[in-house]
Amino acid sequence: MGIGFGRMMQQFDLKDYLSTRKALVDSALEQLVPRPAGLQQSVLEAARYSLFAGGKRLRPILCMAAAEVVGSEPESVLPAACALELIHTYSLIHDDLPAMDNDDFRRGRPTCHKAYGEAMAILAGDALLTEAFGLVARFGLNYSPAAGSAATVLRVVEILARASGYQGMIGGQVIDLEAEQSEVDLETLEAMHRHKTGALICGALEIGALLGGGDAEQTQSLVRFGRHFGLAFQITDDLLDVEGDPAVMGKPAGSDQARNKKTYPAVLGMEATRAAARDHVVKAIEVLADFDEKALPLKEMACYLPNRKA
Amino acid sequence: MGIGFGRMMQQFDLKDYLSTRKALVDSALEQLVPRPAGLQQSVLEAARYSLFAGGKRLRPILCMAAAEVVGSEPESVLPAACALELIHTYSLIHDDLPAMDNDDFRRGRPTCHKAYGEAMAILAGDALLTEAFGLVARFGLNYSPAAGSAATVLRVVEILARASGYQGMIGGQVIDLEAEQSEVDLETLEAMHRHKTGALICGALEIGALLGGGDAEQTQSLVRFGRHFGLAFQITDDLLDVEGDPAVMGKPAGSDQARNKKTYPAVLGMEATRAAARDHVVKAIEVLADFDEKALPLKEMACYLPNRKA
Repeated sequence: MGIGFGRMMQQFDLKDYLSTRKALVDSALEQLVPRPAGLQQSVLEAARYSLFAGGKRLRPILCMAAAEVVGSEPESVLPAACALELIHTYSLIHDDLPAMDNDDFRRGRPTCHKAYGEAMAILAGDALLTEAFGLVARFGLNYSPAAGSAATVLRVVEILARASGYQGMIGGQVIDLEAEQSEVDLETLEAMHRHKTGALICGALEIGALLGGGDAEQTQSLVRFGRHFGLAFQITDDLLDVEGDPAVMGKPAGSDQARNKKTYPAVLGMEATRAAARDHVVKAIEVLADFDEKALPLKEMACYLPNRKA
Repeated sequence: MGIGFGRMMQQFDLKDYLSTRKALVDSALEQLVPRPAGLQQSVLEAARYSLFAGGKRLRPILCMAAAEVVGSEPESVLPAACALELIHTYSLIHDDLPAMDNDDFRRGRPTCHKAYGEAMAILAGDALLTEAFGLVARFGLNYSPAAGSAATVLRVVEILARASGYQGMIGGQVIDLEAEQSEVDLETLEAMHRHKTGALICGALEIGALLGGGDAEQTQSLVRFGRHFGLAFQITDDLLDVEGDPAVMGKPAGSDQARNKKTYPAVLGMEATRAAARDHVVKAIEVLADFDEKALPLKEMACYLPNRKA
């Protein structure tokens, strides 16, 4: 501790950390997701179009970071981390559809259905969701022949399904859909965000902790970190939609308000929303207070959220 | 054998067998799929609307029958059998969407998007697909605490993903979509059917054989049975669309032709199509020739296909 640790902290370069980890995920996705060929060429093209559209790979990075916190190598959880990104990408493709949010642009490019048509976008989303589970199963069968590991990977399948299904992400979409037609209070808004974005982020941390060999207490703390991180992430997302730079975000600003989306700024006002984001960042960091320096990346990522530009 | 076995064969009542098994599946689905409640009420309602619309439960019944052939109790594979039905139902919901086949009726009732809106239908399909994997994972964790069993259930997850993903059912949808805009030959037509319907039917037999404890040779034979059964099933489906009774089928006849769907009758004519169906039925039965009387239900189901009315 003392001077030595202080120096180490100063040396931690978040930007470098994130770009190194993103490159690791990108290259694993490149290998794990099949290239377009044969009769399924078009659906794989559409799926990869969205998968390689420049995403931040936040969920895989959180998953690897959690594995590291409990003492494992980040690479050891890469296939499961990639499955999280497949699920995240499918959710964006379906979310952008005309019947849902009807978005024409994402990350500065036409959305999947604008580029490949609506039918192919529905199928590309379905294929990514399905392949996420296939990928985890193959990972479990190939890399973990030992008995205990297979049961652990089954738990990963269960967490993934729970985090992304009706109890998680899809549940959040439902709250979102129904909120468009009514007034919402802060409680409903938080429930929406906890499900829509929070559940898969918590799932990423839980899966990383579990595959990394963390004990129940460590896993629970990382999931609690995920809950605050997820809320802070979504609240800053709401802020960006109001005051973000469209050129950096790759989509028009003010789109939430235009379609009567329920957001923190709409319910609380800008100042109280900024305070809420900071509050969750502080709580996220505090949850990991007793962890050693391996938890530094997660804390720094949380700390960065209020300053993010995209 | 001889008179005794002959008498037993005469006693096999296919109609009774199918309705008993369907009741078993219906009651398991009722228990395994959560009831609509809380914030997710609407999506679960939409999912259950389609799940309990009077489906034949063909895939779960095939899965249980395969488990029986290799010497297990049908009930022992019920959760996995139900997962197949969840996936089948999701595929119907998404297939019926305006951007896909744009069907207003199925099994005599408005399709899911007609009853609940397009956004909710997309989410209900997504939820059923996701929950299928969650269900299998929970089944593996709760019922198979032993080491070997967890690995077997991971293989089930892998088979499910392969059979329903881009290499299987979704791949068939892609061929189908693209075939609408072009002429197809018999080879493409067969590839379409093998993927679109055949893959999940083969998956049902493979999963039943695997969970039932079948050896590699038995499993392979049951999958080969599934290939012929699946083609015979789809070919008779094409025939029903031309000459079936709309009142029994619960949807209008001639809809394939109206939307330029590629079918066996369109490519081969009616007589050659009927011959092709019989040919696959004969081959399916022959594949199981060396199995004992426990394979009788599968053989009788295959034999019934050319006479089916819905």
